[in-house]
Amino acid sequence: MNVKLLGRITGLTVLLTGMFMLVPMLIAVLDGEDANALSYAGTIALMAAFSALLLFFSRSRDRTFYAQEGFAATGISWIVMSLFGALPFYFSGEIPRYIDALFEIVSGFTTTGASILSNVEALSRCNLYWRSFSHWLGGMGMLVFLLAVVPEARKTAGSGIHLMRAESPGPSVGKLTPHLRQTAMILYGLYILLTALCIVFLLLGGMPVFDSFCIAFGTAGTGGFAIRNSSMGEYSLYLQSVVTVFMLLFGVNFSLYYLLLLRQFKSILKSEELRLYIGIAGGSILLITLNISGMYKSVYEAFHHAAFQVSSIMTTTGFATVDFEQWPAFSKSILFALMFVGACAGSTGGGLKVSRVLLLLKSIRRTIRKALHPRRVQIVRMDGRVVDEETSNNVNAYLAVYCVILLLSFIVISLDGYSIGTNISAVTACFNNIGPGFELVGATGNYGHYSDLSKLVLAADMLLGRLEIFPLLVLLSPDTWSRKR
Amino acid sequence: MNVKLLGRITGLTVLLTGMFMLVPMLIAVLDGEDANALSYAGTIALMAAFSALLLFFSRSRDRTFYAQEGFAATGISWIVMSLFGALPFYFSGEIPRYIDALFEIVSGFTTTGASILSNVEALSRCNLYWRSFSHWLGGMGMLVFLLAVVPEARKTAGSGIHLMRAESPGPSVGKLTPHLRQTAMILYGLYILLTALCIVFLLLGGMPVFDSFCIAFGTAGTGGFAIRNSSMGEYSLYLQSVVTVFMLLFGVNFSLYYLLLLRQFKSILKSEELRLYIGIAGGSILLITLNISGMYKSVYEAFHHAAFQVSSIMTTTGFATVDFEQWPAFSKSILFALMFVGACAGSTGGGLKVSRVLLLLKSIRRTIRKALHPRRVQIVRMDGRVVDEETSNNVNAYLAVYCVILLLSFIVISLDGYSIGTNISAVTACFNNIGPGFELVGATGNYGHYSDLSKLVLAADMLLGRLEIFPLLVLLSPDTWSRKR
Repeated sequence: MNVKLLGRITGLTVLLTGMFMLVPMLIAVLDGEDANALSYAGTIALMAAFSALLLFFSRSRDRTFYAQEGFAATGISWIVMSLFGALPFYFSGEIPRYIDALFEIVSGFTTTGASILSNVEALSRCNLYWRSFSHWLGGMGMLVFLLAVVPEARKTAGSGIHLMRAESPGPSVGKLTPHLRQTAMILYGLYILLTALCIVFLLLGGMPVFDSFCIAFGTAGTGGFAIRNSSMGEYSLYLQSVVTVFMLLFGVNFSLYYLLLLRQFKSILKSEELRLYIGIAGGSILLITLNISGMYKSVYEAFHHAAFQVSSIMTTTGFATVDFEQWPAFSKSILFALMFVGACAGSTGGGLKVSRVLLLLKSIRRTIRKALHPRRVQIVRMDGRVVDEETSNNVNAYLAVYCVILLLSFIVISLDGYSIGTNISAVTACFNNIGPGFELVGATGNYGHYSDLSKLVLAADMLLGRLEIFPLLVLLSPDTWSRKR
Repeated sequence: MNVKLLGRITGLTVLLTGMFMLVPMLIAVLDGEDANALSYAGTIALMAAFSALLLFFSRSRDRTFYAQEGFAATGISWIVMSLFGALPFYFSGEIPRYIDALFEIVSGFTTTGASILSNVEALSRCNLYWRSFSHWLGGMGMLVFLLAVVPEARKTAGSGIHLMRAESPGPSVGKLTPHLRQTAMILYGLYILLTALCIVFLLLGGMPVFDSFCIAFGTAGTGGFAIRNSSMGEYSLYLQSVVTVFMLLFGVNFSLYYLLLLRQFKSILKSEELRLYIGIAGGSILLITLNISGMYKSVYEAFHHAAFQVSSIMTTTGFATVDFEQWPAFSKSILFALMFVGACAGSTGGGLKVSRVLLLLKSIRRTIRKALHPRRVQIVRMDGRVVDEETSNNVNAYLAVYCVILLLSFIVISLDGYSIGTNISAVTACFNNIGPGFELVGATGNYGHYSDLSKLVLAADMLLGRLEIFPLLVLLSPDTWSRKR
């Protein structure tokens, strides 16, 4: 393991995150909140000092950079970034316990949107901004940003592909263009463009400027932190519909938008993942609309809320327009199942990802056929291309480790004594980066009542979910730290 | 598909099941319950007529017997056997609705032990016997019995290995001896021996003869139907301990008992599955004992109940000595997780099976190593032998289809409106052939309150769990019924 290299990547990540804190600091200054401005300034100073020291002591000419360095650097960067990112909440006193502040910022960076706060409206604007912006930053990924804008990072990280693979969601991460820097820039370009569009549509509906930015950040990152206690409930039907559409858009694989720019419409239509994504979302909206239509004044209103909630849960955003805890058990079960499916690979959404679900379904069909006709060769194809054995194996192993982590986390947090429904939905909602679950952690609840141990477990689940498990498991593997290569 | 052959296997299965009904008929006669004796006699007559017709019309010299015939014959036999097996409950009027009787007998044959009855003590002895005996029959499997004792079945089923593979639990089913008939006889011989031992130990503790047989059937098949409303709660500590030990014994791979007879002690000790089985059971008992020790008079009593309940749930039996619904959430979560693990492959227990869990854990480790060292060859070994790629793939696909069925069943039964905890534990307890779940379907609850649709779904889950999914999926696959081979 090239430890000095991990130091350099971590140092750069912390430095960059610190720079992004200048905006909430400015907001605090403009709002005349000197104490808050100071808490941001102090954090930025700490981060600058930390990364300067780290970059100084990890100078080295060793450019060895393999898959394990990619995984480990990503895992460590995300952890350190969270440890610092929590400080402004803590220093400002608005979240008086550090562990709560850590839970909140991990929830932000991982685009989960689970909160320990019962009253978000009590936060000052600078903290609300930082909370929502952490979604935006974590959505596309800090290290992808680093690769896009910092030449030093690219020099350090070799081709950079190992970093990108470790941080980007989905069973297989490819480059859009031969140059990784270009790929990273295209991804961030599209991300900024779509976010800007979302802001414009929100402003057009009369949403205040500050709200528009925060809600757009939460939508773009598929995070789900709102700035009102009612989440999205107080906004107009138009604004809710804008968010519905944009949540769905941010749940699509970004490489399809690139194909759209290249006018390769046929390739887009051929995408099996996109078709399944639309199919599952559409089917779920239909079933829930039928199930809840009696609860609302019109079928249209039922459809509106069903569409919002399905989009919100499936893209793992976690906004709410109504308290879906009051919906019938059937609708809640559909939402619960959607939590596992998640959004498309290569989007900002979490969950297993639609393409993984698709590959799993295909591997089931392959196994049945293989059992029926043992001598026939059975090949799995996706989008017309043959899926290699290794990708299939990785997806299958992913499901296995996913289930193990889910069950173990469930056991540990049950030490707090809440119901099966609360605990299982809490773990599911955190691990899949959704936010709200059911019962005590439902749309109107929060995670504040859990013990510190449970909060740490749930925060770890969020990181495991966002980074798709392996970067963090690699950190724990003795193989990684042995001197042999 | 050789349809006539399916007819012959099904006919033989029904005939044999009918013969086993002579015992409860005799019990009814001895108890002077003429109406019940008639209901059994009528069912037996129906089954004899049905199988005679079936065997007559499915005469054929075509001996084609491939994997798909094995799967389909197993799936159909189990369904038809259940449809007939439910009749005595229904005819006797003691379970007035046929769908309830069907749920009850599917629960029996699949060794689930989930009941729709709130008062089992109201049943007459003949029905109690049939209910418990169905566990014993389903535990080792009807078709294995057929292979062991009916020469015609072996002639029909070619080598018979496809039938045995389809019916026996576990990721890979091997023959103990070159001749399949011998293997089937050894398995049933061991099964009868262990059951007899269990009966003897129960009798020694002063349990009434009738109870001893019924409880031994429920223990041997890891079924869990009791004949008292308090399940095992009213029996002495000694009797409960006997059942604890035998549940654990019946959860072990039977091929290990064969090795024991052959005095191959080293091979037994080398079994990684056995070690993990003991490790998980021991660890769970320890954690639950610590967690519940405050609730009982002594640590020993806490240990006693923890050991009983862990053995009961992990081997997927489902007996209870106390209402574990009252235990702290942590203990309940451990039990919930054990529901998925299940017993060893090649035992009478259900669940994923310890060997599958082991292979899944190994495939996770392999994937991490592969990610770290892409060029190194990574091989999965079990008990010192290399696990071939196909077994790994099958185990992985099994987990995938397992999760899909779990989620879909959960959604459908939630139409009845019960809580997440009730529904998810109901599906888990039925699919893994355990019996009791938590909340409304907990140790003191039952499944009677579910709608007919949900009962059918849960009964299907039990069959899917017992037959390990593929035999029933094969029945639904269009490939199976196409004329092409």
